[in-house]
Amino acid sequence: MNVVVVVGNPKTGSRTRQAADLLARRLTGNPPDASIELADLGPALLGWGSPEVEAAKESVRGADLVVFASPTFKATYSGLLKLFLDQFSAGELAAKPAVALMLGASPHHALAGEHTLKPVLSEIGCSCPAPALFLLDQAWESSPELEAWLARAAVAHGLPGAAGEPGEPGAAGAAGEAR
Amino acid sequence: MNVVVVVGNPKTGSRTRQAADLLARRLTGNPPDASIELADLGPALLGWGSPEVEAAKESVRGADLVVFASPTFKATYSGLLKLFLDQFSAGELAAKPAVALMLGASPHHALAGEHTLKPVLSEIGCSCPAPALFLLDQAWESSPELEAWLARAAVAHGLPGAAGEPGEPGAAGAAGEAR
Amino acid sequence: MNVVVVVGNPKTGSRTRQAADLLARRLTGNPPDASIELADLGPALLGWGSPEVEAAKESVRGADLVVFASPTFKATYSGLLKLFLDQFSAGELAAKPAVALMLGASPHHALAGEHTLKPVLSEIGCSCPAPALFLLDQAWESSPELEAWLARAAVAHGLPGAAGEPGEPGAAGAAGEAR
Amino acid sequence: MNVVVVVGNPKTGSRTRQAADLLARRLTGNPPDASIELADLGPALLGWGSPEVEAAKESVRGADLVVFASPTFKATYSGLLKLFLDQFSAGELAAKPAVALMLGASPHHALAGEHTLKPVLSEIGCSCPAPALFLLDQAWESSPELEAWLARAAVAHGLPGAAGEPGEPGAAGAAGEAR
Repeated sequence: MNVVVVVGNPKTGSRTRQAADLLARRLTGNPPDASIELADLGPALLGWGSPEVEAAKESVRGADLVVFASPTFKATYSGLLKLFLDQFSAGELAAKPAVALMLGASPHHALAGEHTLKPVLSEIGCSCPAPALFLLDQAWESSPELEAWLARAAVAHGLPGAAGEPGEPGAAGAAGEAR
Repeated sequence: MNVVVVVGNPKTGSRTRQAADLLARRLTGNPPDASIELADLGPALLGWGSPEVEAAKESVRGADLVVFASPTFKATYSGLLKLFLDQFSAGELAAKPAVALMLGASPHHALAGEHTLKPVLSEIGCSCPAPALFLLDQAWESSPELEAWLARAAVAHGLPGAAGEPGEPGAAGAAGEAR
Repeated sequence: MNVVVVVGNPKTGSRTRQAADLLARRLTGNPPDASIELADLGPALLGWGSPEVEAAKESVRGADLVVFASPTFKATYSGLLKLFLDQFSAGELAAKPAVALMLGASPHHALAGEHTLKPVLSEIGCSCPAPALFLLDQAWESSPELEAWLARAAVAHGLPGAAGEPGEPGAAGAAGEAR
Repeated sequence: MNVVVVVGNPKTGSRTRQAADLLARRLTGNPPDASIELADLGPALLGWGSPEVEAAKESVRGADLVVFASPTFKATYSGLLKLFLDQFSAGELAAKPAVALMLGASPHHALAGEHTLKPVLSEIGCSCPAPALFLLDQAWESSPELEAWLARAAVAHGLPGAAGEPGEPGAAGAAGEAR
């Protein structure tokens, strides 16, 4: 299963990136096939048709599952992530399975993914069967919310190992790596 | 496949009901196993624990797919539908596949399902892999929006029949039955 | 200043009601002119044209400021409140100043008012210059959120008394404790 | 009255810009004091602390009324506009009166301003007493929606001339100039 992570944090190597990578590992037992740091694309995202942006889009189009990850800025996803989503046409991703992941400083913004990110992903054609996942940026590595979400997402996405058994290569191992 | 339709129109036999039944047929090739007219439950929805309401919930819990259908009132779902959704606890429907369907008089409210109904369905645990479907109430039986949605929803839900049966004018056959 | 409170809690005398009444006092220095418990209207809200419902609407139409208050059910306002809002036609309240107040058990739903209640109030014509106020139902009487909101709302609404009057039992007392 | 327009269209001189300028004229009888084309700020918006961006923010902070205008991209505001809004801290604009204006190709996205742009403006502290205005980009200059909105917004904002009398310098005259 080809999993691609898209990271909308203006800073590379952020907790947003790490949490998204962890999520990919927890969902499939493997690291993501690609992690696209939108911060690396920079000004190319302000126009249309850049080859670097096109390559990132191609990577997304080729994935079996995409994790769209954003810090919470102004109670919603970052402008940087939106710049990239704006590069797709409506419906372009044709029922592509996707996960909406947001990290935030306060639980008060926990509804942001459901109310703001998922509708945009839906507009560009993604299929988001699982609820949006919101993680406190101080507790993204291990939280009851993460485990509960993984259990439900595994069912919603028809994925194998979300909950993970101790000693399993997938979930548990991956979680270990992330610490 | 057990498909249950939930109709949030205060008037029974409404276009909302008919459109929801049609959608069930178009998705599976069969009429829904049950169509719950919330208007029939009436005041029982204002309290908690009514046997009639419990039976309706049980029907929803036992379905393989639920179509939640509402007219557009005040740019969102009806209060009647919300009364019923309020009867479920958070996460109760445990990744139950669901479709959000809204009928409205004007295209100006087309985003209502995505922004208002799907988040509530998600909160009670539903999995909504397809986009919300919005149909003009004057054109619910046959519209390009319906056909495009069915094609995409079939992929998103892993369903067979959205495109109709071979030899059928497709949509047309099922639509014919609905009249 | 004629202030009317509308309470969408299925139980009368709820914390939702008490918080809404407090808010009215804090905003104006006086108790509300009327507090409409929608639970008292009961089944009349399931149809159209009931005299009791019409009287409640008339009270709202005659107010200078309306506080719409709801518990958080399924991450949004209650079905009971929506039944009442559905009784108004689009734009009917003609720029009526209004406040959206929600009480919830968890801060995770703090965005509900902004994303779900204010858009409906806007659709029926209300003007909501202040942000939606979300209060934890365990801490509705005194919280930093309340004080911060009052300060901002007083500016947004051009109201005098957000901070309450010294010596008052209601507003001032609570405010005093909060300082 | 100092009115500032913020334009989130990646192309300068767009219909978004023209519609926003018209709106400012219709609301006050005068052209806006400043029209900030975010496209001119370019890559400076991808980081923090640029002097050009700071000057634009200062202009917004000094306004009596701000029109935030965006094309509809992916059923919501543009990533470019969000980059600029991300530059403000939560609550920074301290009850600043603001208008949310979106232009779109299809009426299907008419709810975008209410559901997506206004909540962000609220988060950075703006006060948006009027409903979001959505204009079809083919008909932004003259539409019944515009006139109805102006009448209501004038009341909500306590502005003078929105509806405009024939011969008045404000509304009507300005509208005439814009055609």
